[in-house]
Amino acid sequence: MDTPMPLTYDLLLTNGLILAAPGLQAPIAEGFVAIRGDTIQAVGAMSDLPQGARARQTIDARGGVVMPGLVNGHCHAAMTLFRGLADDLPLMEWLERHIFPAEARFVSPEMVYWCSKLAAAEMILSGTTTVADSYFYEIEAARAFDEAGMRAVVAQGVIDFPAPGVPEPRENIAAAARFVEGCRRLSQAGGGERLSPALFCHSPYTCGDKTLQGAKALARRQGCQLFIHLAESRAECEQIEAQQGVSPVAYLERLGVLDRDTVAVHAVQLSPEDIALLAARETAVVTCPESNMKLASGIAPLPAMLSAGLRLGLGTDGCASNNDLDLFGEMASLARLHKVAALDPTLIPASQALRLTTSGGAEVLGLANRVGRLAAGLKADCLIVDLNAPHLTPFYNPDLLVYAAKGSDVRTTIINGVVVMDQRQILSFDLPETMSQVRKLAAAIR
Amino acid sequence: MDTPMPLTYDLLLTNGLILAAPGLQAPIAEGFVAIRGDTIQAVGAMSDLPQGARARQTIDARGGVVMPGLVNGHCHAAMTLFRGLADDLPLMEWLERHIFPAEARFVSPEMVYWCSKLAAAEMILSGTTTVADSYFYEIEAARAFDEAGMRAVVAQGVIDFPAPGVPEPRENIAAAARFVEGCRRLSQAGGGERLSPALFCHSPYTCGDKTLQGAKALARRQGCQLFIHLAESRAECEQIEAQQGVSPVAYLERLGVLDRDTVAVHAVQLSPEDIALLAARETAVVTCPESNMKLASGIAPLPAMLSAGLRLGLGTDGCASNNDLDLFGEMASLARLHKVAALDPTLIPASQALRLTTSGGAEVLGLANRVGRLAAGLKADCLIVDLNAPHLTPFYNPDLLVYAAKGSDVRTTIINGVVVMDQRQILSFDLPETMSQVRKLAAAIR
Repeated sequence: MDTPMPLTYDLLLTNGLILAAPGLQAPIAEGFVAIRGDTIQAVGAMSDLPQGARARQTIDARGGVVMPGLVNGHCHAAMTLFRGLADDLPLMEWLERHIFPAEARFVSPEMVYWCSKLAAAEMILSGTTTVADSYFYEIEAARAFDEAGMRAVVAQGVIDFPAPGVPEPRENIAAAARFVEGCRRLSQAGGGERLSPALFCHSPYTCGDKTLQGAKALARRQGCQLFIHLAESRAECEQIEAQQGVSPVAYLERLGVLDRDTVAVHAVQLSPEDIALLAARETAVVTCPESNMKLASGIAPLPAMLSAGLRLGLGTDGCASNNDLDLFGEMASLARLHKVAALDPTLIPASQALRLTTSGGAEVLGLANRVGRLAAGLKADCLIVDLNAPHLTPFYNPDLLVYAAKGSDVRTTIINGVVVMDQRQILSFDLPETMSQVRKLAAAIR
Repeated sequence: MDTPMPLTYDLLLTNGLILAAPGLQAPIAEGFVAIRGDTIQAVGAMSDLPQGARARQTIDARGGVVMPGLVNGHCHAAMTLFRGLADDLPLMEWLERHIFPAEARFVSPEMVYWCSKLAAAEMILSGTTTVADSYFYEIEAARAFDEAGMRAVVAQGVIDFPAPGVPEPRENIAAAARFVEGCRRLSQAGGGERLSPALFCHSPYTCGDKTLQGAKALARRQGCQLFIHLAESRAECEQIEAQQGVSPVAYLERLGVLDRDTVAVHAVQLSPEDIALLAARETAVVTCPESNMKLASGIAPLPAMLSAGLRLGLGTDGCASNNDLDLFGEMASLARLHKVAALDPTLIPASQALRLTTSGGAEVLGLANRVGRLAAGLKADCLIVDLNAPHLTPFYNPDLLVYAAKGSDVRTTIINGVVVMDQRQILSFDLPETMSQVRKLAAAIR
């Protein structure tokens, strides 16, 4: 009789409350997640863990929730440098007197690298494993995310003004094309499938027809997503309607920019016709409630967008307008805001906030076949939330992850099978060095 | 020549960024707070610390912000037991099918004691040093806060229904009178000036004329504050208008219940006339934005209340409707919500949120001569926020305490000169025992 070969895993998470598909499946009260290499091999109840299963590393998740890593659908990571630099100002004063001048003076490849790395630390420490980032010198952000071990869709900024790294706006599409190639080389050398290049047109009011169409054509040629701030504020809508005679969404439709690989960020000021148009084109949306609240942009029509069947994700936006990158807090704001806006306490229940921030975000980024749920064959991106805290006691059900948990309750973060954070310590890179570098950059601003 | 006597303190906080009066005074870049017994002796720049000053205990606050302890203006501490028990439901279904039945079955003296103690731990860990609490069996809450070392205004619940500990509603005022006496005895024995008794009428729709007037008469005789949920929802306003012909505020005015020692909690659905009436009677208001959002009660007219000069504080409400007691998160929600509600990003700036949660709350509770600021002669209630974290880097100014700090960033909490929490460890009581007791109570609900 042959002795059966013991099942061998690289990483085994045991005894946790397993929330394999938040908002879609009931939790497993006491379960395991088994990982080999970068991939989940099995998820189940402890009673179903095969006898003789062994792992090179076992993490006991008792007293914790094991769930998919969170997906931040929109971020400007390098803007950690401008966190709290200017708050509570009228939008145009904030942008024109503080943010734009600071960007013109202080954005450099070095700044983007270090400040994106700081953002990566903050995201990893609060359970975010995938980020869709949009900024200038984005190859440096790609390098920072790669070294941090994060999964990232990295989108090079395109705008019709002189921009950091692209002083000549006529070169903006060519610069973006070079970025896509550079990012693919970086992927091959390091980040592998963790990095996906993309493009980011800043907005319909800062990019003209030619730029919007050129960026979309490049994105199509390269099989990339195109992100764009869209219908963020009333001022934008008034300006586009005055110039183009139609809403920002209808304007992009006219240009042929809306499709399944375009991601509309913010999407606050939408008419029912705009929502129908986004749905017809299968354009995805990322909502950023805390940024929209702080900048007083408005309240996105989320219930209507969900009814229309739009793919929807949650984003933090950058630190200049939030001012942190904690998706747990963002989920709570999302769930609370839409209730009070419609005076209906049943809107955006916690389970839906959790779904949008895991599998929903993965769908928006075209990554649903890789991440967003814990299931055999998917990439091993997950986190453990420590429930042994007064503010999470008692714990009757996972809704509490939205209404009481904070990013600081995340005990362990795993990306692509690698433990990048454990016991609140970043393991994938030198965080003190990163903080020291960012503080030096900030000292120059002060 | 005499050698000058060295200045001796019990506790000295050194090298911190001192925010002595948030929203009112500029911070001191590198300063100290000197404490003797329960009282602050001096606050100033390190360069002004008298030579030869010595302390029995020195805490180096370098890399941290030293600020006044936060004031939670409204809480139902014992409801930690019902944290997350039922979320995202229509208000009446939530109350009548979940919260009221759970209260009828599970509220006991033991439950109030342990669950209030858990709340105390959560508040201390997130920098709250004073709480205004309202519940049944409130003497047990008083005992829990006393043992935890917290400062508390403890208000015995009064309602015209059979209530925990008061099965006969006709006895509700007499029971409240016994509570006030019991609390005063407890103060003399232990909590001293840290505990103040008060009354809490649940609402104008659950207390009739006689109860409201009886409670106010008792409060006046005893020199106590009277708290009441007021104008929380549209449904309440419609009901009171139908029954009384006037708004809830005007109804209380007609009963003679509004004065400087009445605290209106929520105050969401107010007309300009209501606001003028509250201002004329100098009635204070506590706003609870996260509860109002989650229960979809509405958005309180804060800018108008501030313009009218009302004393205003911030509260978390109970854990059944929030679901945590973290005033840092609550400040962020407060500041963001009113901006988006009015589409004005300058409303409720961070400095104002900080002020409402420190000196503002102290004014509402009649404690401004004791706490809410760091100044010689005031009680030593303060906390240290650790800035050495990615999400608080860079730190340009104290606005970040509102827009990025979380309760979990509080490193040290001091109440009445006693270090009740340091390095995230509760020092004033046995937290694991408390969590274990609450979990046992929760198991019975499950």
